[in-house]
Amino acid sequence: MFPKNAWYVACTPDEIADKPLGRMVCGERIVFYRPRAGEVAALEDFCPHRGAPLSLGFVADGRLVCGYHGLEMGCDGRTVAMPAQRVRGFPCIRSFPVVERYGFIWVWPGEADKADPALIHHLEWADNPEWAYGGGLYHINCDYRLMVDNLMDLTHETYVHSTSIGQKEIDEAPPVTTVEGDTVITARHMENVQAPPFWRAALRANELADDVPVDRWQICRFTPPSHVLIEVGVAHAGHGGYHADPKYKASSIVVDFITPETETSIWYFWGMARHFKPQDAALTATIREGQGKIFAEDLEMLEQQQRNLLAYPERRLLKLNIDAGGVQSRRILDRLIAAEQQPAGETVPA
Amino acid sequence: MFPKNAWYVACTPDEIADKPLGRMVCGERIVFYRPRAGEVAALEDFCPHRGAPLSLGFVADGRLVCGYHGLEMGCDGRTVAMPAQRVRGFPCIRSFPVVERYGFIWVWPGEADKADPALIHHLEWADNPEWAYGGGLYHINCDYRLMVDNLMDLTHETYVHSTSIGQKEIDEAPPVTTVEGDTVITARHMENVQAPPFWRAALRANELADDVPVDRWQICRFTPPSHVLIEVGVAHAGHGGYHADPKYKASSIVVDFITPETETSIWYFWGMARHFKPQDAALTATIREGQGKIFAEDLEMLEQQQRNLLAYPERRLLKLNIDAGGVQSRRILDRLIAAEQQPAGETVPA
Amino acid sequence: MFPKNAWYVACTPDEIADKPLGRMVCGERIVFYRPRAGEVAALEDFCPHRGAPLSLGFVADGRLVCGYHGLEMGCDGRTVAMPAQRVRGFPCIRSFPVVERYGFIWVWPGEADKADPALIHHLEWADNPEWAYGGGLYHINCDYRLMVDNLMDLTHETYVHSTSIGQKEIDEAPPVTTVEGDTVITARHMENVQAPPFWRAALRANELADDVPVDRWQICRFTPPSHVLIEVGVAHAGHGGYHADPKYKASSIVVDFITPETETSIWYFWGMARHFKPQDAALTATIREGQGKIFAEDLEMLEQQQRNLLAYPERRLLKLNIDAGGVQSRRILDRLIAAEQQPAGETVPA
Repeated sequence: MFPKNAWYVACTPDEIADKPLGRMVCGERIVFYRPRAGEVAALEDFCPHRGAPLSLGFVADGRLVCGYHGLEMGCDGRTVAMPAQRVRGFPCIRSFPVVERYGFIWVWPGEADKADPALIHHLEWADNPEWAYGGGLYHINCDYRLMVDNLMDLTHETYVHSTSIGQKEIDEAPPVTTVEGDTVITARHMENVQAPPFWRAALRANELADDVPVDRWQICRFTPPSHVLIEVGVAHAGHGGYHADPKYKASSIVVDFITPETETSIWYFWGMARHFKPQDAALTATIREGQGKIFAEDLEMLEQQQRNLLAYPERRLLKLNIDAGGVQSRRILDRLIAAEQQPAGETVPA
Repeated sequence: MFPKNAWYVACTPDEIADKPLGRMVCGERIVFYRPRAGEVAALEDFCPHRGAPLSLGFVADGRLVCGYHGLEMGCDGRTVAMPAQRVRGFPCIRSFPVVERYGFIWVWPGEADKADPALIHHLEWADNPEWAYGGGLYHINCDYRLMVDNLMDLTHETYVHSTSIGQKEIDEAPPVTTVEGDTVITARHMENVQAPPFWRAALRANELADDVPVDRWQICRFTPPSHVLIEVGVAHAGHGGYHADPKYKASSIVVDFITPETETSIWYFWGMARHFKPQDAALTATIREGQGKIFAEDLEMLEQQQRNLLAYPERRLLKLNIDAGGVQSRRILDRLIAAEQQPAGETVPA
Repeated sequence: MFPKNAWYVACTPDEIADKPLGRMVCGERIVFYRPRAGEVAALEDFCPHRGAPLSLGFVADGRLVCGYHGLEMGCDGRTVAMPAQRVRGFPCIRSFPVVERYGFIWVWPGEADKADPALIHHLEWADNPEWAYGGGLYHINCDYRLMVDNLMDLTHETYVHSTSIGQKEIDEAPPVTTVEGDTVITARHMENVQAPPFWRAALRANELADDVPVDRWQICRFTPPSHVLIEVGVAHAGHGGYHADPKYKASSIVVDFITPETETSIWYFWGMARHFKPQDAALTATIREGQGKIFAEDLEMLEQQQRNLLAYPERRLLKLNIDAGGVQSRRILDRLIAAEQQPAGETVPA
């Protein structure tokens, strides 16, 4: 169960640089490709001739050419040509609204007429040269909501990521969850603690002492359908924490775009945007590599959790205060999904 | 859906040279073996004692000995002996009509009393020393009819095999499909074209110039249940094409025996018979290697096409003129399958 | 179908030496761990917080700490603590009776109140320093009863293990099966035969001539739920066989603990206990390696037999005299399983 009338990250530009990409998003088999430089298109990955996957084809003159018998498909899902054939009566395939923005390709797997690019929320860090971004992609066999839970409850860092970003004080600092419209915010502040290894390295990269007590914060923001952006950072203790002057701080935004593939698998786009030394490509690579290792630690846990939940579907899970972020996020998702399933004209009470 | 009252290629002799072979054909688990030199037998791969696969056993004195507890099975499916046991009351297992001919082992998975070896159609190239043959075997996860379609519509060569046997002119030469009884013939002739790389090599092997225009032909013949033999070749242009004198020609027969394993998987026996330099074993090996690479290019396409068709079972595919060969072949198959399912005594209108 | 009110071997101590072990036994997902040195515990592998597998966690202060969010679980299935949480109302998870004995961890997957450790039958060889034991573990995709059949009918040695322990005379010596309560005994004695390779090596290890005729015996004992212990050995011929003086003998006990994972897969704990040279660790290693290779020969046969039986569920298998051990064992199992499914208070006629 996922909202289909929503923008999801489908892929990154490098994935369609050389040839079309076949990828399932929200249960839809889709081919993503560049009809021309700077353009992007998304179609059902199904040739109307004999059902071959169009993603095994190639692009020529702005058309997606089927790699089986040469049918030439337009970006709108209408066949433009086919060698020695009249194609006027060929059935159309579905085209999906698709937008390139902020360094990602976004797709709308639901009703095309509702797809307004303005609904992609603004990502300051992606457009501003004072920021740098690095990230990656994991395929994980779990319900996308398990990953939302994971990211909205960072107490797991103490256990899953104990050698890098975890620390005992996370557990001890109660998180505060608030809901603003369709945004869920879970914030946690730790004062006067030792920075864990990842953050000591970040302090050094920021030319700050790494052996003094710090104030640390984690502010997780869920927005539908399944995006979690987390402001994280440390400041030398006593300078105002999250609000401290930049000269005392190392901070960044953990970026998580979670795209359902099926009901029990996801494409997980993870990354980090930082507000310091944006030109330092080596630093970007180092952070990306470190984050990749840390985030890989979640995979086995999430996949085995998913298997447990499938094996015991009737069990009720606990909803503790630390789970409030995930619980509130699911409530919003349930409402959006119910609204989509409603006949047109009816409304669902919030 | 496949005809069961038909001869299918089960394996090649080398596959049963050293020990029995277990292979599923048309959904039947069958063990193939040589009871004695020059003989071949095919039985259900199921020991009547405890259900062990007989294909894990061995042959002794003309009997297939179960590798679990030593039951000795005769070629007729009757247990001959078992250590320290009286076997008279043992249940029989099914034996399948099986014939070795033309360098292949042929099996009849349907009603044994209808299995007439004379129904195996004559293969001139297999018996005549003026011909040489080389081939191989691929396992592919697709309905056998998708492979029939593939072979009866060679426009795919332009796209799937663009670097070897494909060329634009294939698309441009309209194929002509005719039906003669249960045989479907799709023929295509291209005149005054450049030979693609595979055929240039064949011209050279034939001691013919490879840099002059040629006439090229492809004559695909489908015969039930799922055999497609394709006469292919090139002749120096203007000498009569298909009918040209051999001294201007390089030609051969592409051999395709497609044996269903299950509804969605096949054993694909592919090869090439050539009418020139039959003694040149090195040439046979070279052609075989080249053909193996070319035919491997179809695998991913067919398997992904199959997955698409399973995902969208309700979609109607197009039946263009280029698809006529496959469409007519399926029509014959449908008729044969319906006839098999008919109660005895009734007939199905053609 | 397996009895659940029974002691099964779950694992060996080395498997839980460093960290918890997640293993499915009789369809139950269980985590095994050492709360403290010398203790062992078994719980549902399901954290009551969010369903994470507890087996990915760690042990601290006698508690099993969930590796996801730090819930601390007691050996009784009650949550003891969780960072910053009150846990009194947390739902319990199931704890399983578990005992360490004879070098194995035993678990009772059924009703806990019926789990009497006294029901684990005495294993003389495991407690007595005059014996040495070596063994291993295989995972096999077959119904546990197929392995019981395998071990209660050693005629398969002639075929499956023809190069090591098999010999023609096994087939020729009729086995005698007797039932004593819930124990099934199948015994076979061969007189004045050549020892096969494995036993020749054992004779040499025992400082006995290996090139003289021997008497050989195999006495298989099945006890529920699925343990098969087999007394095996050879003695120089004419000295009384099984009853011969130890100075003429090489003998041991083949140990087989078969633990169902699912209806069609098992954890197979195999090993050999010997009554000679118990201090010779190198000999233990050599025998273990040899036995491991021999027992691996059964895997493919059992897995393919299982696949055949699933494909032809309606077929009746033969029950010959050599199968009597397996048949009688299944009869006892059927009775035990029926008794478990009986409403309390009713009894099942034996």
